[in-house]
Amino acid sequence: MPLIVQKYGGTSVADAEKIKHVARRAIAAKDKGSDVVVVISAMGDSTDDLIALAHQITDHPDEREMDILLSTGEIVSSTLLSMAIKSLGQKAISLTGAQAGIQTDRVYSQARIRSISPQRVQSELKAGNIVVVAGFQGVTEDMEVTTLGRGGSDTTAVALAVSLKADACEIYTDVEGVFTADPRIVPEARRIPEIDYEEMVELATYGAKVMHPRAVEIAQIHNLPILVACSFNDKPGTVIRGGIPMEVRNKARGIAHDLNVAKVTIRGVPDKPGIAATIFEPLAAANISVDTIVQNSSVDGLADLTFTVTRNDLNKAMKVVEPIAKSIGATSCISDAKLGKVSIVGTGMQNTPGYAARMFRALYEAGINIELITTSEIRITCIVNETKVADAVRSLHKAFQLDQE
Amino acid sequence: MPLIVQKYGGTSVADAEKIKHVARRAIAAKDKGSDVVVVISAMGDSTDDLIALAHQITDHPDEREMDILLSTGEIVSSTLLSMAIKSLGQKAISLTGAQAGIQTDRVYSQARIRSISPQRVQSELKAGNIVVVAGFQGVTEDMEVTTLGRGGSDTTAVALAVSLKADACEIYTDVEGVFTADPRIVPEARRIPEIDYEEMVELATYGAKVMHPRAVEIAQIHNLPILVACSFNDKPGTVIRGGIPMEVRNKARGIAHDLNVAKVTIRGVPDKPGIAATIFEPLAAANISVDTIVQNSSVDGLADLTFTVTRNDLNKAMKVVEPIAKSIGATSCISDAKLGKVSIVGTGMQNTPGYAARMFRALYEAGINIELITTSEIRITCIVNETKVADAVRSLHKAFQLDQE
Repeated sequence: MPLIVQKYGGTSVADAEKIKHVARRAIAAKDKGSDVVVVISAMGDSTDDLIALAHQITDHPDEREMDILLSTGEIVSSTLLSMAIKSLGQKAISLTGAQAGIQTDRVYSQARIRSISPQRVQSELKAGNIVVVAGFQGVTEDMEVTTLGRGGSDTTAVALAVSLKADACEIYTDVEGVFTADPRIVPEARRIPEIDYEEMVELATYGAKVMHPRAVEIAQIHNLPILVACSFNDKPGTVIRGGIPMEVRNKARGIAHDLNVAKVTIRGVPDKPGIAATIFEPLAAANISVDTIVQNSSVDGLADLTFTVTRNDLNKAMKVVEPIAKSIGATSCISDAKLGKVSIVGTGMQNTPGYAARMFRALYEAGINIELITTSEIRITCIVNETKVADAVRSLHKAFQLDQE
Repeated sequence: MPLIVQKYGGTSVADAEKIKHVARRAIAAKDKGSDVVVVISAMGDSTDDLIALAHQITDHPDEREMDILLSTGEIVSSTLLSMAIKSLGQKAISLTGAQAGIQTDRVYSQARIRSISPQRVQSELKAGNIVVVAGFQGVTEDMEVTTLGRGGSDTTAVALAVSLKADACEIYTDVEGVFTADPRIVPEARRIPEIDYEEMVELATYGAKVMHPRAVEIAQIHNLPILVACSFNDKPGTVIRGGIPMEVRNKARGIAHDLNVAKVTIRGVPDKPGIAATIFEPLAAANISVDTIVQNSSVDGLADLTFTVTRNDLNKAMKVVEPIAKSIGATSCISDAKLGKVSIVGTGMQNTPGYAARMFRALYEAGINIELITTSEIRITCIVNETKVADAVRSLHKAFQLDQE
C-alpha cells in the first residue's frame, strides 16, 4: 500500500473546526488507498502563548525546560486531531516525537534529528491507524525532550517520509504553493508549478516563508519530491523536486524578501590578520547567527566592516561587538534595525550575464538605494531600507517579467 | 539530609506571580537544609480548558488521546516552576510523570500507580536540584501516557513520598487545613490541628475537598504523616496521621457536605433474588459510580429501590436503568438531580450511642426533611434537598458543639 506523509501547519489547525477539516482531508487520503502519517504543528498562536508565559516567569528561561514546555503545543494538537479522526469513524493514534522514535542531539531549542526508529509508526499503520505525529520535537538518547527550532514540523515530516520510504510528502499550509513573489505585495505573482530543490532553499532562506530551507535540504539529499499546497482548498500547489529540465530552469524563478534584517557597522577597523575572527568568534559563541558580511578595502590601514543579523539579535550583537570594537581600536560601532532584503533566485543565473546589472538598474529606476549586496551562484540579494522593500519586490517582478508564463 | 515532598494545587500556580511565590517557598524549604521534591497540578482552570477543547472536537473523545492531552497541563506548570526556581539562583529540574518513574496500569483517565522507580528523582536530588514533578500522570509499561483521575496530584505526591522514604509530605492548597465544616458556610468553623487517617478519608469522601481520600489511604497504609496547609501564608494547617489518642478522637470531628448528588428511584420492583445484580451490574459496566443504595421492605412482593450518583452521571444512569426497570416489570423509574448530602464524621461515634438521634433531631428542629440515610462505623450521612444543605451544616455544627475547643 502506498504511504503518504502529510504535514499541516499552525494556521491549518488553529481551532476545532479547522482540526476537523484536516481530519477529513487525512481520511480522504486514506480512503483513496494509502497509508497516512500526519505531522502536525501547534494550534495557531499557541507556541507564542507558551513563550509569553515563560517570559512572564523569567527573562531567561532555562532551555531544557523551555523545550519541554513548547513540546506540549504539538502534543495538544496531535491528540485533538487523532480524536477528530476517530470521531469520524477512522482508526487513528497520536504519537509524541519520542513515541514516534525521533531521536535528536542535545542542542535544546535547535536540535537536529540524528535518527528515526520507525517501528512504532509502522506497526500503528499496519494496525490500520492514521498516525498523527507531534511535529517540531524529539528526544535525546536519555529521553530528554528537545525541539527542532524554526521549521521544525516541516523537518519532522520530511525526515519521517525519508525514514518510512514514503511515496509522497505533502506540506499543507495557508498559501497555495510557491509564488514568483509574495502575492500580498505583487498581485500578479504567479504560482510556480515545479521548482528545483536549490532554488527553493535559496527562496526560503531569503524570505519565502512557505517552507523551511532545512527541510528542503533533507528532501534534496534523499531525492524526495515534496508537494507544497493549501490546506483550505484542492488547488495544485508546487512540487519541489530535482531534475527539472534546463530550459525551464534557465531564468529568474522568483523573488524573496525579508523584513527581519538589522545591520551593524564597525568603522575604522585596523586592517590586520585575525581581526575578523576576533569579532565573529564571540558572536558565534553568543549563538548569534550572522548573515551577510561585507568588508570594504582599507584606506590608510583602516577598513569598515558591516554584517547583518536578525532584528531580535541586534541588541545582543551590539553588546558583544562594542567592547571588541573598542579593544581593537576601531573608530565607532553603529547599527540600523530598519532594513530589509530583496533577492532574485534562479538556477540559470550563474551562466547568464546581466542579471545583477538588470537588478541594480531596476532598483535605481525605482529610486531605491542599495545598502549592501551579496550573491550566491543562484541568487542576488540587495539590502535596502525597510520602507523600500515592497517597491523593490514589485519593480524586480516586473523587470524580470515574472508575471509572464 | 532530610527529604520533603511538597504538593501545590492548581489555584496555587494559577498565574506567573503565584508560580514565582511557590518557587520561593520551595527554595525556603531547601535553604532550611532539606532535599525538596515539588509535585504540581496544572495551572488554575487549564485542565478544564483542555477538556472543553476536546469537547469542541467530539462529544466522546478517545480516552487514550484525552490522557495525553490532559497530561500537558501539568507538564506546562512543572516547566514554568522549574524555570522560576532556576531564575532565583537555585538548581532545579522538571520531570514528567514518565521521567519521574511513575508506572501505572492501563486504565486511561483513572489509572492506578503500580510502582515508582525513584532512581531519576534521587539522582537529580543528589545533583543539588529541587525536583519538580508533573502531578496527575504516569506511564504504562509500554510508555503510554495515563492520568490518575480526580485527586491525581495528591496521589502522585503521597506515592512519591512513600517511595522516596520522605521525612515529610506537605499538601499546599488554597485553604488553611481541614476545618470542622466549610468556613464559607459556617463562619465559626475551627481548624482541626490533627486528624486521623480514617476520619480524613470519610470527610474527604463525603465532600471535604481539601484532599482526595485515595491519597489519604495510601498515606495510611504506609503510616506517612501529611501536612495540609495554605500555600499563601504560613499558618499551621492540619496534620493527618495515625495514633491520635482516644480522648481526642472520641467525638464528632467534622461535618462534610456535597452538592453533587442525584437520586434514582425504581418503584414497584418485584422482590426476587438477583434483581439488584440485574440493575447494578450494567451500571458498573457503564462506569457509573453508585454511592448510596437503599431498598425498603417489600409490600405485596414489590419494593422501592433508590440509589444516588453524581449529577454528571444521572442521564447516563437513567439510560441504563429505564429499560431494565421495564424488563423486570417495575412500576416506574424517577429521578431527582437537586440533592445534597451532609455527613458527621468522628472515630468515637461507633462506641457512643445517640449520635444519630442527635443528628436527626437537629435537622428536624431546623425544618429539614431527610430523604435518605446511610452510615459507616465513623460517619452518618443524610441526603436532603440541595437548598437545605447549608442550613443543615450550620445546625449540625452547632448541635455537636464543633465551634468549641
